[in-house]
Amino acid sequence: PTPSLERLSKRARLLPSSPIELETSSSSRILSFPPSHALSSWSAPPRTLLLVQKPDDSRVRSTMESVLSHLTTRYPHLRLIVEPHTARDHPEFHDLTVVEKEDRALLGLHTELILTLGGDGTVLHVSNLFGQGECPPVLCFSMGSLGFLLPFHIDSLAEALHTTLTGPVPVLNRMRLACTPVSASGEVLDRCSDMIVGDAGWQVMNEVTLHRGGQRPLVVVDAYFDGQHLTEAVADGLLLSTPTGSTAYSLAAGGPISHPETDAFLLTPIAPRSLSFRTVILPGRGVVKLQVSDRSRAPAELLVDGREICMLHSGESVIIAKSPFPIPCIERSEGGNSWVRDINSLLQFNVGFRNKSLAPGGSGD
Amino acid sequence: PTPSLERLSKRARLLPSSPIELETSSSSRILSFPPSHALSSWSAPPRTLLLVQKPDDSRVRSTMESVLSHLTTRYPHLRLIVEPHTARDHPEFHDLTVVEKEDRALLGLHTELILTLGGDGTVLHVSNLFGQGECPPVLCFSMGSLGFLLPFHIDSLAEALHTTLTGPVPVLNRMRLACTPVSASGEVLDRCSDMIVGDAGWQVMNEVTLHRGGQRPLVVVDAYFDGQHLTEAVADGLLLSTPTGSTAYSLAAGGPISHPETDAFLLTPIAPRSLSFRTVILPGRGVVKLQVSDRSRAPAELLVDGREICMLHSGESVIIAKSPFPIPCIERSEGGNSWVRDINSLLQFNVGFRNKSLAPGGSGD
Amino acid sequence: PTPSLERLSKRARLLPSSPIELETSSSSRILSFPPSHALSSWSAPPRTLLLVQKPDDSRVRSTMESVLSHLTTRYPHLRLIVEPHTARDHPEFHDLTVVEKEDRALLGLHTELILTLGGDGTVLHVSNLFGQGECPPVLCFSMGSLGFLLPFHIDSLAEALHTTLTGPVPVLNRMRLACTPVSASGEVLDRCSDMIVGDAGWQVMNEVTLHRGGQRPLVVVDAYFDGQHLTEAVADGLLLSTPTGSTAYSLAAGGPISHPETDAFLLTPIAPRSLSFRTVILPGRGVVKLQVSDRSRAPAELLVDGREICMLHSGESVIIAKSPFPIPCIERSEGGNSWVRDINSLLQFNVGFRNKSLAPGGSGD
Amino acid sequence: PTPSLERLSKRARLLPSSPIELETSSSSRILSFPPSHALSSWSAPPRTLLLVQKPDDSRVRSTMESVLSHLTTRYPHLRLIVEPHTARDHPEFHDLTVVEKEDRALLGLHTELILTLGGDGTVLHVSNLFGQGECPPVLCFSMGSLGFLLPFHIDSLAEALHTTLTGPVPVLNRMRLACTPVSASGEVLDRCSDMIVGDAGWQVMNEVTLHRGGQRPLVVVDAYFDGQHLTEAVADGLLLSTPTGSTAYSLAAGGPISHPETDAFLLTPIAPRSLSFRTVILPGRGVVKLQVSDRSRAPAELLVDGREICMLHSGESVIIAKSPFPIPCIERSEGGNSWVRDINSLLQFNVGFRNKSLAPGGSGD
Repeated sequence: PTPSLERLSKRARLLPSSPIELETSSSSRILSFPPSHALSSWSAPPRTLLLVQKPDDSRVRSTMESVLSHLTTRYPHLRLIVEPHTARDHPEFHDLTVVEKEDRALLGLHTELILTLGGDGTVLHVSNLFGQGECPPVLCFSMGSLGFLLPFHIDSLAEALHTTLTGPVPVLNRMRLACTPVSASGEVLDRCSDMIVGDAGWQVMNEVTLHRGGQRPLVVVDAYFDGQHLTEAVADGLLLSTPTGSTAYSLAAGGPISHPETDAFLLTPIAPRSLSFRTVILPGRGVVKLQVSDRSRAPAELLVDGREICMLHSGESVIIAKSPFPIPCIERSEGGNSWVRDINSLLQFNVGFRNKSLAPGGSGD
Repeated sequence: PTPSLERLSKRARLLPSSPIELETSSSSRILSFPPSHALSSWSAPPRTLLLVQKPDDSRVRSTMESVLSHLTTRYPHLRLIVEPHTARDHPEFHDLTVVEKEDRALLGLHTELILTLGGDGTVLHVSNLFGQGECPPVLCFSMGSLGFLLPFHIDSLAEALHTTLTGPVPVLNRMRLACTPVSASGEVLDRCSDMIVGDAGWQVMNEVTLHRGGQRPLVVVDAYFDGQHLTEAVADGLLLSTPTGSTAYSLAAGGPISHPETDAFLLTPIAPRSLSFRTVILPGRGVVKLQVSDRSRAPAELLVDGREICMLHSGESVIIAKSPFPIPCIERSEGGNSWVRDINSLLQFNVGFRNKSLAPGGSGD
Repeated sequence: PTPSLERLSKRARLLPSSPIELETSSSSRILSFPPSHALSSWSAPPRTLLLVQKPDDSRVRSTMESVLSHLTTRYPHLRLIVEPHTARDHPEFHDLTVVEKEDRALLGLHTELILTLGGDGTVLHVSNLFGQGECPPVLCFSMGSLGFLLPFHIDSLAEALHTTLTGPVPVLNRMRLACTPVSASGEVLDRCSDMIVGDAGWQVMNEVTLHRGGQRPLVVVDAYFDGQHLTEAVADGLLLSTPTGSTAYSLAAGGPISHPETDAFLLTPIAPRSLSFRTVILPGRGVVKLQVSDRSRAPAELLVDGREICMLHSGESVIIAKSPFPIPCIERSEGGNSWVRDINSLLQFNVGFRNKSLAPGGSGD
Repeated sequence: PTPSLERLSKRARLLPSSPIELETSSSSRILSFPPSHALSSWSAPPRTLLLVQKPDDSRVRSTMESVLSHLTTRYPHLRLIVEPHTARDHPEFHDLTVVEKEDRALLGLHTELILTLGGDGTVLHVSNLFGQGECPPVLCFSMGSLGFLLPFHIDSLAEALHTTLTGPVPVLNRMRLACTPVSASGEVLDRCSDMIVGDAGWQVMNEVTLHRGGQRPLVVVDAYFDGQHLTEAVADGLLLSTPTGSTAYSLAAGGPISHPETDAFLLTPIAPRSLSFRTVILPGRGVVKLQVSDRSRAPAELLVDGREICMLHSGESVIIAKSPFPIPCIERSEGGNSWVRDINSLLQFNVGFRNKSLAPGGSGD
């Protein structure tokens, strides 16, 4: 079911209601990045919806049934696209368009809106599904547990869906990283078979990691920023995180917490053999290269968003820049920034000592 | 009311039930330290009890009234010693022995047991009262709030008191630091007027701190261990903490958490001008010297347990060793070590992320 | 010597050679921020030069004499402006325009270019001199020692000056913070006498700090971002830093290292009474409020770039946003970004263990 | 060549010159630990010497040849024991006693002194060779590079050897951990085939680690101290380190630096999923249990001193206590504690900022 060009040009999009702000990259390429946060409206009413459901979870499955009932009843004109496991879970719904694994590349052409049901991992899966290009807006529902990427509770389904389909809605464009593994001579590594690297590289939501994995010898990685050698890391691993990823593996490795709208990368080592390594914050306009050093005694495992991609050998590297394809996350209209709520409730950021004394020098009473 | 020598020799003491373990210091002096944790019994029934009450707190005041009633009724033979503010708070009790501030030095001769009512600060006050020598056993009651130094809830007063007065009871000897400020030529600084430094120095329960205070220029302090230069700290301050103090100012400055029985000091800087400073753990058998450097542009404030003592100028230092006079804290007989409970409940040590995912690489679901 | 309006309109400026990139603030005010890094050219040949010299330093003084000789000989048309101490140091130069302290407000009208000689502190002094508005471009020379704000060695005076006066030159616009102390009801605090707060607030290069100073009780500060309560800090202090300031006090307090072009603030506590406080990275487009809590037992000292401004009492706060007036720092044309060099050479960032083993698990050979 | 019992009873030993200090363990077992640092003398002149040489290193090999020449010439009565690779490297020496891998268990009976040549790893290898019981004194030579376990430079061979063989010499007894993997029901796991666990467990010099290794899901480990649940770690790994090991993997994971004589364990997580985990210092008298949680989705890899031992599954654990068999390291008689020198020269502990300013608030000049 390949769409006609005409159809494509008419694909509904959520566009910022106010004029677009343009940033000019410092390099010769000129890329346009969408604003990180903007009230957005549909260019036309959306007609296709991709449903992404956490697999192997009976609670999610039965809730998805209610979602499907609601959608088919209230929005019969919407074409519903699902993954095979969702189709199998709900055989009573006959009009679902099933996208097989080998047809995923077509998803980008057909999908105007995405609805997810599950945890933060479900949103990472969406990022992965749209790992090679533009991602449609995502409306994320939780089953009740909190999550950084889950602004809506499933109980608010009807209202949130209505607001989203009619617009305008606030959209948070979460930065992704575009990463490309290259050989010592700078050619794209096609060896990384699981990952079809296109022109734009692979799009990553949380972090790109080089890690020694089960391999025993330490990783030795040279980090470059805009072509300049920044440092050599001798460590269990080294990762470059988006602001969104700052609350994932980067945090465990000791990194700071970043607001999701910050236009920056965070470079953080995992168990570095140095007393003086700290997270380095780099401006989002630049290009980072992480190269396995010639001093490294073993290859390093390349992981994106926690998934193993391939091994990089001495001289090989991964090139990382801000992706032109962020994840447009639909936010709640009221109630303030959910990130502030999340770092407090999820991470228990800065919980005080329960007997925290306001007395001098730590000597309580 | 100076006691006769005979009386003194008969002062009741809580002594370890098992044979005493002796440690021989590496230096030529030979000191005997009590075991850090031991079941202890009275050499004779205690006849004097010092009551220490948090001042200016109406809840504590009215509870102390019940304590006094209980004591005078149930243990009429006990001589009750109090500070002036406690006597003023409870004029209806006529038989209290009041120790004026200028007579504090006599407390050590008369006191066989101490009962405190208030927060952790009350115990620090006890350490201060017995800041120049041996401290009798302390039985600490909280008003309900948790505290590292508060094993007993006031509701268990009758039972805890009975067990303690009859024994045996578990006693945790909390290490104190003996510290002495000295001139560049090594003489004891008598300028530090608020602090009468005797032969044993001043006894400190949490930490000894050199800090720039309101003084703007940074502190430059040379730290020595057993006479050997360890490092030069350029920082807001530098502190040496006991294991007990590891959960006070030392923790705020970034130091680790130590079990109270560890025989060690923790040397931790406050906002050091170095990427590579970490807490240093030193064996309790040694001697630490913190000396204000000749490079320091301003004197440093010397604080013990959060109280300002005096300013130290370039070349002056504070000498710190393990005190032969720990604080014998009476512990609960059952329920395991309260420190484990406290670091979890008070500090909220290692509270997990609420959505903590067990999935790979920080990618939740 | 007040300039005519005509003269003013013709004041020479360094302007980006490429078209200006505009950012639209999220608030209703629309501000235009200059690009963080751009090759810039003069709108007209500069005719005035402010010389800023580190005071009370004989080496700097004699070097400044050479600088003055070079300037008067090679660029006789340049009007040289100096501070009183520089005029006193160099009585043999008669044509210097001296700006008395009370006339500093005029500096902005007259100065087209600034040349500094001394350490990083000299550049902070420039920021202070132009603390209430726009700052002209600054060409910074060191006497040989390294500094984050010192791209040029004095030995390259002739060449660097020539390149700068003719242009184009690379300019790094270092973000400043605009900060305003306000009362509980939101009115500007005019009590802070040393600091004339104008419409734009006070411009700060490194960091804004609330600190308990010599005041003993801990600071309790509520931090807000875009009006939303972020956290309550119980600490020795709390600071908000620019990327430039990330290598100053913020680093000592444990914060990460930021590239100077990152468009972000760093919120970092000093000795927080919490195990779970980390630096928070906030996008530069937002507004931060640090408010002394009603729970605070004492006022907090407000410091900007390390200078005490005034005490803030419970309910009072300081409002901080990105300043529209960065410090335009002239950079070297070749040799890569000096920040990368500086974090390695000045901070000794990530120096490895000298015997750093690449063997498994920290077990070297 | 099994020694007669008579011979064994006469095995030469280095014994503390001063009376032995005894510690009584809190458990019912009564163990005697040697003093951590003491001047020691031989009970009889040593007659056997085990030579341990770093393999596959041509510089070490040729230096070992000189060592062998020196020994056979100067100390012809000494029986020299070597590993097979050393015998192969030096066929010209015919009188070497070669200990095959399967005879290692006999080493403890025959060896009176050990000489190592190589890096820190060589000493870890010695610990491994004597991994099931007592270890004879070790005299460690470096080839020039620094190392925490290498007090002597090979150039001082003749003198150091002479002093050591005649005594008295200072001996630092480096704590080892005795660790035993046990099943959920508390039985010793004999599945861990590479590691013959005897009554005393396996002796470990640096650290015991549970790590997810190449296994992707996070490790979930419950840590117990003296039978009491301390915390649940969700992390890449969790390690318990000796003071000696505090400068190895523990340091990379963010732990503090401990003096080698401290009688304590350090519990440190690797990349924990918690903002509020800190290293915990535990007294050396206690028992630590690290148990793979039932919540763990995958087994954890057990490593001792960086070597993989086996996988532990949910419910299985490793029990760790202070070993009664430390590594007696012969120290230099002069020049102070080498640990102080090493943390400064090897780790570059607390290297200051090169432009470290003593000015207020991090604002240098």
